[in-house]
Parts: sequence; structure tokens; C-alpha cells
Amino acid sequence: MNNEQKIIENFFLPLAKNKESLELKNDAAFFQKNKMVVSSDMMIEDRHFDKSYDPLILSKKLLRINLSDLAAMGATPYGFLLNISIPPKNYKNWLERFCLGLDQDMKKFNVKLFGGDLSSSPKTFLSLTIFGHVKKKIHRKINIIDGSEIYISDTIGNAGVGLKIKNNDKKFKFLNKSQKDYFLNCLYYPNPKIKLGNSLLGIADFCTDISDGFLNEINYISSFSDYETNIFLEDIPISDDMKDIAILFKNKKKFWEFVLNNGEDYQLLFSVRKSKKHLLKKKKIKNIKKIGFFKKGNPKEIRIFDENKNITELSSIGFSHF
Amino acid sequence: MNNEQKIIENFFLPLAKNKESLELKNDAAFFQKNKMVVSSDMMIEDRHFDKSYDPLILSKKLLRINLSDLAAMGATPYGFLLNISIPPKNYKNWLERFCLGLDQDMKKFNVKLFGGDLSSSPKTFLSLTIFGHVKKKIHRKINIIDGSEIYISDTIGNAGVGLKIKNNDKKFKFLNKSQKDYFLNCLYYPNPKIKLGNSLLGIADFCTDISDGFLNEINYISSFSDYETNIFLEDIPISDDMKDIAILFKNKKKFWEFVLNNGEDYQLLFSVRKSKKHLLKKKKIKNIKKIGFFKKGNPKEIRIFDENKNITELSSIGFSHF
Repeated sequence: MNNEQKIIENFFLPLAKNKESLELKNDAAFFQKNKMVVSSDMMIEDRHFDKSYDPLILSKKLLRINLSDLAAMGATPYGFLLNISIPPKNYKNWLERFCLGLDQDMKKFNVKLFGGDLSSSPKTFLSLTIFGHVKKKIHRKINIIDGSEIYISDTIGNAGVGLKIKNNDKKFKFLNKSQKDYFLNCLYYPNPKIKLGNSLLGIADFCTDISDGFLNEINYISSFSDYETNIFLEDIPISDDMKDIAILFKNKKKFWEFVLNNGEDYQLLFSVRKSKKHLLKKKKIKNIKKIGFFKKGNPKEIRIFDENKNITELSSIGFSHF
Repeated sequence: MNNEQKIIENFFLPLAKNKESLELKNDAAFFQKNKMVVSSDMMIEDRHFDKSYDPLILSKKLLRINLSDLAAMGATPYGFLLNISIPPKNYKNWLERFCLGLDQDMKKFNVKLFGGDLSSSPKTFLSLTIFGHVKKKIHRKINIIDGSEIYISDTIGNAGVGLKIKNNDKKFKFLNKSQKDYFLNCLYYPNPKIKLGNSLLGIADFCTDISDGFLNEINYISSFSDYETNIFLEDIPISDDMKDIAILFKNKKKFWEFVLNNGEDYQLLFSVRKSKKHLLKKKKIKNIKKIGFFKKGNPKEIRIFDENKNITELSSIGFSHF
């Protein structure tokens, strides 16, 4: 567990002993009676973004990262409450761009604005609470069995490169405009996998979104499973643009450490037991990739295999907001 | 309308054209189908509080100001999502005090913690989303009729003095400890009027909490009524401690401007039409005070009468978070 998860377990879990909280282990809380899923995520200046960001990007990203939590639960978006606090200087221009992005994505994802709170402050602070509906089931992080196969919804690592480009990292300066745009778009406009999350209900053992890096998420899942986790690097999907820039890294190990430790791609990570594989196949879902499996062995151990099927030790810097 | 309300009307109302939002004019949104009320309020360092605050006060106040929104809707508290971002330095001590206050008030008000988000940042940022249940009705700000009488739930102005004391305002330095404690407690621990809000369902024409000062609220209510508002200063309830310090103000006008422009008392402001007065009487509610009435006349005009029944002009600085 990273520091953020430890704080949650030590300080907040004792206060959240109720069914709805799902022990604070899932991507959202669940109101069984109302068939409603609720989640809330923040974006803070100098923590998640800096002054240079176009507010249109901020509103889209804020909405999408919250929608991604609904996706991870298998819920259908309903609407949201929005809390924003921004510097008073040029606030009208700021709000115009912010609301333009919001309007576009509210239409795209069919979500309603219900209300919120507004204030001014020296630094920008954004917080959004999202509401989703579910028909019957939700995803929970607890149903892994021996042999369950691990999947990822699409390529990862791209947003991490986007962040490097955004921060003017020298290493990535030589990239051409189309490459830069590709990676930056991955950073700015994550795609919440709402349909996929929904399709996987009744099929996946668990489902979560990879917000803070693959190793971080798989560590967390592994920490409360009773199985050994086996991951195969050669099966992890990466984009063609990502392949093209692999040479920028000292070696393969460094490359994979980058790909697996950088977050914000918001792909779904899930597992499917063998008895349900045929159900998954029937769905004919594009781009999903099997990357490993759980098995009896050393519980909570994570074994990562390189292309020669040798175990490789990758440092898991993970990502903790704390 | 103050600047905050104008921004909401100009930028966010066009995005909130749905039933649930209640046109962003009420203290919370309403999910009719689920009989659920939801609201979200922030508290930001250097805006709503400063570094010197005991985190125990912050958690209690954050929860209570959100509960006050439920009270204003006539809803029964259910639970909340909590987003906090705090400086990493001494975070354990901070969280211990914060969670202690939270635990105490969660028990006091019978609310559950469902989840939230955690981050670190140079300044403290707090955001809470509260959920409440309703049986049938909620309060809306739209049912004023000719002759409706205006009530206030209890004394106002106290939190304003508390803030002056907290900020070491020289004028209030001579107060004795018990006086200081009284006013500070009013500032730190507002009492959400949950029972009252509930009792008033089906009785009040409108109901809202006075978070940003009496004149601010009555201006807002008046702005979308078709009646003239008449308020009588001599009927506005003030605490004995407040009476004792009236001499600190240059004159009565200055005193009332202070009382009516300072927020954070979180009393309920509501009106009752004459045909429902008997229902209100039956409830035998303590401390509520009739302070004026609406009548045909000059729509949207607010007439404030002094003790000699002369109209008095008070500057409405109101309070806008923007």
C-alpha cells in the first residue's frame, strides 16, 4: 500500500464502517437501495496541473477522471456536483473556457450538472462529485480466484509521456508535433471506459481504473487477494508512438518502469476467471489484452516476467497523492 | 444578486437545465425518484479559515455547514463524501484532530462517511458532499404569497463577532473570556437546524439557511419574489451577549449593519402564509421569531423599519465568496 492508501486505512476506514463505503476499497461508494454509485475526485493547482493549463482541458479532465470511477464500478453516468475555487483575476475568461469544455463533455457523456459551490482563492481548486446508476450489480475488488486472468483495456504509459512533454522535459523535445499531440491528448483527455465497465458486469472478478500507475494498482489489488500475481511485460499493450520512443530510455527495464509507474491513462484493469472466458469472448470487446493471471503460490507476491520469461525486478515508485 | 450568484446564473445555470438542479436556486439538488437531496460545500484556507484553526473545529464546521443545507431543504442526514487536501508537514497530528472532530459529529448528527479523495497541497482545501433523505416534500424558494410572514430560527450576528475575536480585532479585545467563548463557539460550531427544517415541511413558503448574512439572503429571496419585503429591526432576535456589546458600535445603524451583514450563523430564514400559521403554532417551536412579512407593493423592494417604525437605509455589503 502507498502512503495515501495507508492514511485512508488508518484514519478514515475506522469512520467508514458502513455498507455503502465498501470499506473504502473500491472506486466509488454504493447506495444499494437507490442503485446509485457516488464518487468524488479533486484536481488541485500545482499538484495535478499548473497555471498554464487551458481551463477547457481542466473541466474535461475533471469530469472524465470522475466518470472513470463510474466506469470502474460498471455504472451509467447520471450527473454531478461541481465545486470550484479560482483566482479572481480574469475569472470571466477562465470560466468561459472551463464551461465550454464542461458543456461539450456533458453532452458527449450525457451527464447533468446538479449544483455545487463557488469561491475565489489564490490557487485553483476543483472538486467534482459524480453520480451513476446501476441496474443490479457493481464491480467489487474481491472476487479473484485461482487462475483468474488479468486484462487491461488498452495501452498505458501515454499520459506519462504527455506529462513529460507538458513539463518541457528535454528528453522528449525532439518528438514531432503529431507525436507530441498524441501524448498530450492522452494526458488531457482520458477516455472513461464506461461501456466496457458496464459490459464486464457479471464477468470480471474485479475491475478498477488505472489512475495512479499500473504497478500501484496491481499492488493494491494484490494486497487484498490471496493469490500470486503473474504479469507478462510482452503482453502489456503500448501504443505505436510509445514503441517509437522506447529508445529514449536507457534500457528496457527503465522503459517498463516508466510505462508501469506513470498514471493518468485511466484504462481499466480487471480479471476474468476461466469459467467466464466465453462470456468475455462473446462481447467481442476491442483492444482489451490479457497480460497475466493469478494463481496459488506466494500470496500477495507480484511476479513480472520479461520477454524471455525471466522474472524482472521493477521498482514500483507507484504514485501517491500523499 | 451578489457576484457569486451572478456568476452562477451566467455561467452555470445554462448548463444545469434539469429538474434535479432546481435551477441552482436552492440549498441543494433533489433527486425526486430517489427521494434524495445532495449538496456540496467547500472550506478553503485563507478564505474560510486560516492556519491557526484547530483541525477539530474544521471537520465539525465543514460537516455542519453541509448539514445546514440539508436542514434548509427539510431533509434527514444520511452520509457524506469527503475530499481533503492538506500540507504534508505534521499531517498525522492534523488528521488525528480532524478525524476526532469528525467522529464526534458523525455520531452527534448520525451521518455516515462513504468515501472521498485525499491529496497533499501547500494550502488546506476541504470539500464535502452531503446526502440526505426526504419522505415526500422538500423546501423550495418559490411559494411566497401576499401576507406571508417572515421568520428566523434564532439569534444572528454572533458568528460575526466570533470572527472579529478570532482575528484579534482591537474593538472586541476587552470582552471577558465567557463572552469571547460564546461568540467563538457560535463561529466554530454552527448548529444545523435539521429538526426545524423538517418540521417546517408543508408549512413554510420557502426555507433557506443564512450562511452569508441576513441581508444577502433576504435580497436573494426578494430577487425572485413578486412582493415587497418588510423587516422590523426590533423583532430580529439577538443574543444577550450581543446586546451587551452594542455600545461598541458607533450607532444603532452601524450595529444593525454588522448584525445583518455577517454570516455563518446558519439560522433558518423562512416564511409562513397566514392560512398555515396555526400549523406552525401547533409545532411549539422554541426561539423562532417573526421579523416581518411580504406584501403587495413594490415588488423586490426591501423595507427595513427601525424601532420607531421609520424606514432605515442599511448598506448591504452582503457576502460573496467571489
